[in-house]
Amino acid sequence: MAVRVDLNISLDGFATTTDQTPEQPMGEDWMRLVGAYIATRTFRERVFKDTSGAGTTGIDDKYASAYFDNIGAEIMGAGMFGLHNFPDDPNWQGWWGDEPPFHCPVFVLTHRKRALIEMAGCTTFHFIETTPAEALKQAVAVAGGKDVRIGGGASTVREFLKAGLVDRLHVAIVPILLGRGIRLWDDLRGLEAGYSVASETAESGVIHLTFRR
Amino acid sequence: MAVRVDLNISLDGFATTTDQTPEQPMGEDWMRLVGAYIATRTFRERVFKDTSGAGTTGIDDKYASAYFDNIGAEIMGAGMFGLHNFPDDPNWQGWWGDEPPFHCPVFVLTHRKRALIEMAGCTTFHFIETTPAEALKQAVAVAGGKDVRIGGGASTVREFLKAGLVDRLHVAIVPILLGRGIRLWDDLRGLEAGYSVASETAESGVIHLTFRR
Repeated sequence: MAVRVDLNISLDGFATTTDQTPEQPMGEDWMRLVGAYIATRTFRERVFKDTSGAGTTGIDDKYASAYFDNIGAEIMGAGMFGLHNFPDDPNWQGWWGDEPPFHCPVFVLTHRKRALIEMAGCTTFHFIETTPAEALKQAVAVAGGKDVRIGGGASTVREFLKAGLVDRLHVAIVPILLGRGIRLWDDLRGLEAGYSVASETAESGVIHLTFRR
Repeated sequence: MAVRVDLNISLDGFATTTDQTPEQPMGEDWMRLVGAYIATRTFRERVFKDTSGAGTTGIDDKYASAYFDNIGAEIMGAGMFGLHNFPDDPNWQGWWGDEPPFHCPVFVLTHRKRALIEMAGCTTFHFIETTPAEALKQAVAVAGGKDVRIGGGASTVREFLKAGLVDRLHVAIVPILLGRGIRLWDDLRGLEAGYSVASETAESGVIHLTFRR
């Protein structure tokens, strides 16, 4: 069992963008951040249900495939679920569609009390208010020995990193400068201690960097 | 003739560190930032005058060799020269030793009027107060058709990047998190437009990323 993070960030370190609107929930900047990832064959198969075999098959796809492998539970911030956008609608089920791409229990960290949501494809959303360490315990308990992913956003991931709870951090660094958003790396001086770090550049220009312990 | 930048930055984007003291002018963080660069055979030969052939010869050395190649003039900020540390000493000749590693005219951007300094090894320090574009004109005029380097620090480089004056930006991204210092990437949203971007990872773990136009 490992606690894993996979995030796309810009060269200037922004993992969460700020140009979202209700009509375009991810924003243009976000599309640029994840463009190479969305273009992979694995993403097209797993998320878009495109079984034509279209999509890239290089280094980006290797990471996309690893992304979906062996996750037993996921933890995310309220913003990643979408709570901040429709905070007062108790029927709002998040941005992730009728069949979210998680296929496992998802723990959403929030101060708001909300009832459990069960979605198609075995995704369940549990809304909890607790510390990173305690949330992780709950996730591990239902992960069936598989890995737990800290899904995002950047602030949530940073809290888990600062608490020393992450075993493997993979960042896909996209060589663009966004200049605004939420930075992943703030206040993480010395994070590299205790990790080995390796990186490789994909055909798309995306740099895949992995901290492992 | 190209206008070039070569900088070492941390993963969180800091190019200039803040733990310098008069006794340790570069600081420990700076040593970590440039460690792989200093370890190259080229740096040892060119800066330390070590002709034993010791030093690394891989990808880091390829960039170190390119760093020293074909520079006809250099522009730097007052901090990189060292003016901020002994601002009131008219005899202070900067951090760079009796024979600075530039071997060309160096233009130091500063509001302080200072006389030209001629050092051993053909380095001359010219203190000028002007805009990036005007400083570049002066540097080009004495560069003899060779390239002009914007040496640093981060704030000076950023001004030249924002003014659209840089043809080739090479950053050596060291996979450490410093958490403090001066960021290279602030306020450069969209810089990648008009450049092609390529990267490769050295044996040391340093990621060499180059913007070219």
